Amino acid sequence: MIGASKATTVLGVDPGTLATGWGLVHSDGRVLRMIGTGVIRTRPQDPLWDRLALIHDAIAAIANEHRPDSLSLEQCFVSKNVQSALKLGHTRGVIMVACRKAGAEVFEYAPSQVKSAVTGSGKAEKQHVAEMIRILLTLQKAPPSDASDALAAAICHINHMSGSAGRIMSMAVRR
Amino acid sequence: MIGASKATTVLGVDPGTLATGWGLVHSDGRVLRMIGTGVIRTRPQDPLWDRLALIHDAIAAIANEHRPDSLSLEQCFVSKNVQSALKLGHTRGVIMVACRKAGAEVFEYAPSQVKSAVTGSGKAEKQHVAEMIRILLTLQKAPPSDASDALAAAICHINHMSGSAGRIMSMAVRR
Repeated sequence: MIGASKATTVLGVDPGTLATGWGLVHSDGRVLRMIGTGVIRTRPQDPLWDRLALIHDAIAAIANEHRPDSLSLEQCFVSKNVQSALKLGHTRGVIMVACRKAGAEVFEYAPSQVKSAVTGSGKAEKQHVAEMIRILLTLQKAPPSDASDALAAAICHINHMSGSAGRIMSMAVRR
Repeated sequence: MIGASKATTVLGVDPGTLATGWGLVHSDGRVLRMIGTGVIRTRPQDPLWDRLALIHDAIAAIANEHRPDSLSLEQCFVSKNVQSALKLGHTRGVIMVACRKAGAEVFEYAPSQVKSAVTGSGKAEKQHVAEMIRILLTLQKAPPSDASDALAAAICHINHMSGSAGRIMSMAVRR
C-alpha cells in the first residue's frame, strides 16, 4: 500500500445539537493540509427543527463548496441517556443527508479509533487530541475541542484509507 | 372558537427507519379530506445514510408538491433501547428538516394525544386507530397501520389547531 494513497478531501464532523464541530482536511497522499474548520452553534431556546435546519444548511454549504470525497463521523457512544441519544440522532441524520446529497461517502469510526489515529492512544483526553491536531496540521494554536475532534475524525479516515494508521500522520509531522 | 377554524393542510408522519408512514390531510375548517397517504420503505441491507437520504427526498418531494402548513409528528416513546432511539432520531431529524425547508411549521404530539384525537382513547390499539381513520376520512378501507398513524397525527394537529379535540372529527363523520 505504501505510495499508493490517492489525494482525498475529507470532512470530519463532531455532531452535537448545541455545537457541531467540522474540519476539512486534504491529503495529497503524503501530507495533510487543513482546508477549514469551525463550530456550528445553535441557540438552545430555538425549536429543535430550526436548529437542525441551521446545522443541515451549514454542513450542506461546506459540502457543496468543497465537495469532500468522504464524511467521517464518530460513532456514537451508546449513551446511558435515551433522550440525549435521540436528540443526537436527529443531528447526525441531517449531517449524513447533507453530505450524502453533496456526493460524499459516509464513514463512521469508534471514538477510540479517532483518538488513536491522532494521539496513538484510544483513551486520550480532549486536550491531548487538540494539541496533536495543532502539531499534525501545523497550526498556530489548537482549535477548540469540538473542531479538533472533527479534524481528528477526518484524519482518522484518511489514515484508514491509506492502509496504515501511523504513516500519513508521521509524514505530516516531518514536513 | 366555533366557526373560526381556517383551512389548513397538514402532513402527518410516523417516522421509522424501515417504514415511514405519511398522510396529508386537508381541513376546510369543517370537513377533513385525505389528499394522499403512503409508506416509505427502505431496505435494511442498505447503509443508514442512503436510507435517510431516501426518506428525506420522499418527504421533501411530498412537502414541496403540496406545501403543507404544518408537519405533525408523534413525540417519541422514550424507548428503553438507546440504539433504537438514536436510529429513530436520525430519521426524525431528516423529516423535520425536509418539511421545515418546504415552509411547514413543525408540531409534536404525545402518542396518547394522537390516539385520543381519532378514537377518544389514549390507549387505543393500532387497529382501532386504523378503523377510525377509515371512518373519519370516508375511505373504502383502512390504510396500513404506519399510514393510519401518520394520518392520525395530522388529524390530531388539525383538532388541536381548531381548539376542540372532538369537533372537526365529528363533523367529518356526519358529512
